[in-house]
Amino acid sequence: MDHLINNITESLKNEGIQNSLINGQFGIEKENVRVDYKGGMARTPHPGILGDKFHHPFITTDFSESQVEMITPPLQSVAEVHGFLETLQDVISENLVDELLWPQSAPPLLPQEEEIPIAKFGEKGIHKEKYREELAHKYGKERQMLSGIHFNFSLTSRLERKLKKAIKWNGDLEKFRETIYLKMVRNFMRHRWMLIWLFGESPVSDPSLKMKSLKTGEKTSMGCSNAISIRNSSVGYRNKEEYFVDFNSLDRYFSSLSKLIESGDILSGDELYLPIRLKFNEDSKQISHLEVRILDLDPFEKSGVSKNRLYFTHLFLLYSLFKEEKDAYQDKDQKIAAKNQDLVSCSGMNPDLLLMSTDGNSTGCDQMLNDLFADIKKFMADCKLNENEEYSSALSEVKGLIDNPNERSSFKVKEKVLEEGFINFHLNKAKQHKEESEMSGFRFHGFEDLELSSQLLMKAALRRGVEFNILDRSENFISLTQGDKMEYVMQATRTSLDNYSSVLMMENKLVTKKILEASSVRVPCGLDYQNAKQARSDFDLFEGKPIVVKPKSTNFGLGITILKENNNQEVYKRAVDIAFEHDGSILIEEFISGREFRFFVINDQVTGILHRVPANVKGDGEKSIRELVEIKNLDPLRGRGYRTPLEKIRLEEAEEMFLKEQGFNFESVLKKDQIVYLRENSNISTGGDSIDYTDDIHQSYKDIAIQSSKALDVKITGLDMMIEDVTVPATKDNYAIIEMNFNPAIHIHCYPYIGKNRQLNEKILDSLGF
Amino acid sequence: MDHLINNITESLKNEGIQNSLINGQFGIEKENVRVDYKGGMARTPHPGILGDKFHHPFITTDFSESQVEMITPPLQSVAEVHGFLETLQDVISENLVDELLWPQSAPPLLPQEEEIPIAKFGEKGIHKEKYREELAHKYGKERQMLSGIHFNFSLTSRLERKLKKAIKWNGDLEKFRETIYLKMVRNFMRHRWMLIWLFGESPVSDPSLKMKSLKTGEKTSMGCSNAISIRNSSVGYRNKEEYFVDFNSLDRYFSSLSKLIESGDILSGDELYLPIRLKFNEDSKQISHLEVRILDLDPFEKSGVSKNRLYFTHLFLLYSLFKEEKDAYQDKDQKIAAKNQDLVSCSGMNPDLLLMSTDGNSTGCDQMLNDLFADIKKFMADCKLNENEEYSSALSEVKGLIDNPNERSSFKVKEKVLEEGFINFHLNKAKQHKEESEMSGFRFHGFEDLELSSQLLMKAALRRGVEFNILDRSENFISLTQGDKMEYVMQATRTSLDNYSSVLMMENKLVTKKILEASSVRVPCGLDYQNAKQARSDFDLFEGKPIVVKPKSTNFGLGITILKENNNQEVYKRAVDIAFEHDGSILIEEFISGREFRFFVINDQVTGILHRVPANVKGDGEKSIRELVEIKNLDPLRGRGYRTPLEKIRLEEAEEMFLKEQGFNFESVLKKDQIVYLRENSNISTGGDSIDYTDDIHQSYKDIAIQSSKALDVKITGLDMMIEDVTVPATKDNYAIIEMNFNPAIHIHCYPYIGKNRQLNEKILDSLGF
Repeated sequence: MDHLINNITESLKNEGIQNSLINGQFGIEKENVRVDYKGGMARTPHPGILGDKFHHPFITTDFSESQVEMITPPLQSVAEVHGFLETLQDVISENLVDELLWPQSAPPLLPQEEEIPIAKFGEKGIHKEKYREELAHKYGKERQMLSGIHFNFSLTSRLERKLKKAIKWNGDLEKFRETIYLKMVRNFMRHRWMLIWLFGESPVSDPSLKMKSLKTGEKTSMGCSNAISIRNSSVGYRNKEEYFVDFNSLDRYFSSLSKLIESGDILSGDELYLPIRLKFNEDSKQISHLEVRILDLDPFEKSGVSKNRLYFTHLFLLYSLFKEEKDAYQDKDQKIAAKNQDLVSCSGMNPDLLLMSTDGNSTGCDQMLNDLFADIKKFMADCKLNENEEYSSALSEVKGLIDNPNERSSFKVKEKVLEEGFINFHLNKAKQHKEESEMSGFRFHGFEDLELSSQLLMKAALRRGVEFNILDRSENFISLTQGDKMEYVMQATRTSLDNYSSVLMMENKLVTKKILEASSVRVPCGLDYQNAKQARSDFDLFEGKPIVVKPKSTNFGLGITILKENNNQEVYKRAVDIAFEHDGSILIEEFISGREFRFFVINDQVTGILHRVPANVKGDGEKSIRELVEIKNLDPLRGRGYRTPLEKIRLEEAEEMFLKEQGFNFESVLKKDQIVYLRENSNISTGGDSIDYTDDIHQSYKDIAIQSSKALDVKITGLDMMIEDVTVPATKDNYAIIEMNFNPAIHIHCYPYIGKNRQLNEKILDSLGF
Repeated sequence: MDHLINNITESLKNEGIQNSLINGQFGIEKENVRVDYKGGMARTPHPGILGDKFHHPFITTDFSESQVEMITPPLQSVAEVHGFLETLQDVISENLVDELLWPQSAPPLLPQEEEIPIAKFGEKGIHKEKYREELAHKYGKERQMLSGIHFNFSLTSRLERKLKKAIKWNGDLEKFRETIYLKMVRNFMRHRWMLIWLFGESPVSDPSLKMKSLKTGEKTSMGCSNAISIRNSSVGYRNKEEYFVDFNSLDRYFSSLSKLIESGDILSGDELYLPIRLKFNEDSKQISHLEVRILDLDPFEKSGVSKNRLYFTHLFLLYSLFKEEKDAYQDKDQKIAAKNQDLVSCSGMNPDLLLMSTDGNSTGCDQMLNDLFADIKKFMADCKLNENEEYSSALSEVKGLIDNPNERSSFKVKEKVLEEGFINFHLNKAKQHKEESEMSGFRFHGFEDLELSSQLLMKAALRRGVEFNILDRSENFISLTQGDKMEYVMQATRTSLDNYSSVLMMENKLVTKKILEASSVRVPCGLDYQNAKQARSDFDLFEGKPIVVKPKSTNFGLGITILKENNNQEVYKRAVDIAFEHDGSILIEEFISGREFRFFVINDQVTGILHRVPANVKGDGEKSIRELVEIKNLDPLRGRGYRTPLEKIRLEEAEEMFLKEQGFNFESVLKKDQIVYLRENSNISTGGDSIDYTDDIHQSYKDIAIQSSKALDVKITGLDMMIEDVTVPATKDNYAIIEMNFNPAIHIHCYPYIGKNRQLNEKILDSLGF
């Protein structure tokens, strides 16, 4: 025990340290057994659509081929890591055909042991298979099918440096790190029983489950009547015996671990099934992070773990860091801690449970819980973490469980299993989770502040095992890496595929027009003026033709006049003057009639075509406009503030006015199939509908879109085309290109109101060569 | 004569037409004989540095290998076309070694006829050589060495359409065009004598010049005592006889031309040496433009012709378009006009010259001049061109010549030749023009509103024969074309060489830093904050280190604090607060000492390194600071408002204050070699000096610049590096990259205050593959 470290609590008064506490590096690994719709372990191989499991950084298999393992990268907040895990869950669920992810740590219906398939990794991964075979032999395959959650954690280097400075540590940073991480581990080990008591969630298993006894080698049923966590219990995912390693210094740790390996008790550190592990950088022997292995799957959560559970676990680790230690952590202390784990796992539902206090005496579990909770609460107040909404809400939830032990998830699971049966209950949960996953297909949880297009691209990357790194979050600037390949992408569609000058051409409407014109693509013809006198005196050139008079750059359509006849010189001059009020440069262009379509082009292929329609409802002869809007707004694709592919239709002043012009109000009841528009503009942001036309537009228009892209040597563009009639082939004058966008959104083509998901996120990754 | 067209004058009341009159398409072709420094025709081949003359669109040879021909593309104003010509003149002059451009239409010292080399165009151009040999045989090589200026002109299609509409012409546009262009030609032919009288400028030739008489075949001396333009005279650059073609309709024109060719009088239309020619599109028989061939070279103008002369010629053509014709243009009228040309060319200096009026009677030249001038002046008033400064000033100049005929250039040339001798006078002028060309090397005349970098790129393009087209002038957006190759460039350095994501990386300072850091390039290390509380509480991380606290985006350095010690927490916190007052996101970075250098990288090569020094003067023990500044400001590289590579040093409040701090004022006299700075900042815009360091920096820094460019996969960048000592190799911490710019200026590396021209404009064209 280092004296300086032990008195680290003092540093909590330091405001800089307080402000840095919630930061850290967080990671999660989670296993779920794949099951069929009857609750039986899936016999199919790991799905190919989820990539090469040997190289995939996020999705692989654990012990068994049927046991999916999800791995998040290290992320900077609990919210992010939880979101990443949830997104992994979504992506895997969406891509499983006729299968579900088993939401319980205790296994589903298993076949005969010999039919439980060990994960296959091909020739390159033959060592992995060998290792699994040894485990199967030693522990029985059934035991290896127990699934759980590992929570990885390290402090930020900023906090480490601040702590080191605050306590005036004179040694080097690495030594300081070892010291504080070992302290965290020791305190965690001492108090770990609390996490199991709170969050243990494998109280029962299916009656059919038999596991090899590590003592006798016989297959036996599992469970004790008051169990909270079979997985964490002595019959669970544990070594043959309780092996102890010495956490009082790094040297002692390595030497105790070596002894266990030399004696043949375990093959490597990986086989030491501790509730928490020290993890090291592969190339150095420096501590990289801690791995908390104690959390069971939570069947009530789609992702298998609630955010609050993670917040509390993080808090528990911080508490372990700052909590003063009275003594070194000796063998006797290890034994007491292990005993308490077993007691809580196996009998944690017993309200009168007795545990062992640090001095070896039996003490009421409730008393010990309350004492420990009070100490954690005090710690939170000391470091002002109680001012943080997430952490204090997590603490309140825990307080509720301590006050009402029957509210614990373990009780709820047991109750539900009694009602519905072990398999049925969990199967229903699994189905529910899958539905939820499918409904939030457009979302990357934990990263909802990014644009939907970026979220979708990241989701596609995640499925393929392309790692991403957010370089500038507010700019949606990410890097994508797979093997040696690296790409930088901004806003999903601004990539290295395009050359700079093509983008500059698109950015400049005048230049776009000139180049398209030179390539015989129709654009609204017209002239630009810097001089009002010249523009005013050009009435003769436009007389009798439908024209648009507009400022060269315009926001929200200000200063634009459409003259459909243009036979009054005075009106024309006024329109010119209005445009010049908004810009020193104006355009007078022919007015193009028809409907507007967005063509999305990638690498000379039209990959999506979309048309937007103003906010509208369709009557059923019974409901009012207000009711029809409310029903339409229930669609999970509709939300508020650009967080969803479509926006909810509003019932506000603009809509009221527009309806009034048509003789309606919000309470008007529409006839069956009567369509009423609530807005003139077709923007998605005001509740408009997006309709996929990719397969419904004459090929000739697609050819024009490609020809245009080639003219500017553009690889990715969102091209806006006016078309008179999409079923009639393009002629010289029944269409026109209005604009080519250099950063077109992709989500609108993936989640349209009507039509197919055109998977533009996948197509962009394809094009980038991933 | 078409009645509608003849009464076209009415349309001049139309404001739209008035406003469109000065627009048009203008082009110039000009010949100059290359001479040595003794005034002898150069015997060297056309310089290779000026490109392949067979394909070069702007620079080729005319009849003789020694006769450079400059060709501007069609441009939209007289100012542009004059500027382009002047720039051609500059580029050719700069690239001639030990040779000059002969500034007079009458030839320099010629060798024996057989030694005058016919232009060589290689095998592909063998037909051109053949044609020239026939001309040599027919006209004598000496006559072909008479050089001149051709002015090409067409109306804008906008004006043509407006005119057609105004006079209610019902036929098709092409027929309308034929009619008005033929009218222009006829009126021009009638009155062309006036242009010769005004602008004729080959009054004498060198006494040694003898030309083959077209009548007798003998070699004879040229000239008559009152000649104005030998070149336009009957012994000048003319056919054997006066051949007439019929300009009353296009059909008649072609048939009269065919007759001349069939009779063997001329080989093709090209051999018909008319004062004005109709020109046609090659593929159709549509009129493209008119070619005025009457202008002599003006030895007093570097470019060979003044802008005013071009403005008046344009005005003369417009007058010809609108001037009512009393009769058709018959043979007798042609003869009168030809006679007048001969009279003016040969005797135009005679104050009592008589010409022939349209009715065939002799009339005083002065009377005819005054009448014609009055009519042109009235036309100008009718169409309000008198409100245009350029055109009315051109008219005033002409008025001055009519009032004082001895002021004409022809008189001045004759006078100077009398004083200095024919060869000497023109040789001196040629030398003076060459010096002027060299002083404006950074400028593309007529396009001075573009950035200097773009002007330089265009100049390099011009030399190589790469055609350019300005797509958006205010944006400096141009296209470059040569053969099948086309490139689009904005601001000289934003090109297709770079991919979009590399540019986005450079645009984002945070991302640039992250990527460079990951590539082990040193950048100022630091942290970014969105939260003031967090930043304020991070004093411990930066205590005792030199830092810069700055808003993430900053203009003019606002909100930046440099803390060189950083040992006062309160001062630190204040600096944080100040930065947050300017942006919601701030950076705290280590402060990097040393001097800043701009590295220009193209395609993984450092092509220029520049260091900037604040405005300064160096004493001589006698002069005051004010005088020293005035002398330094005489440098033609220094100007005002970014139109020159350097800016003049100002003597304003900021300079006064800064000098005062050092104990000086503007009148202080500095000791010999004493250097005093007038500004703290080193910006060029406030009179700073730019110093080329390309060859004076240790290679290791260049390697770092290249490594950085590769890290971002950037092809063109201006990289700003802080370096402690440029002579010491780079170590881990004696430099840092501050910024990488995606649109760096090139002119600063081409025209530094001290150092070589690094020719970045040429290197960019090289990289683009031209």
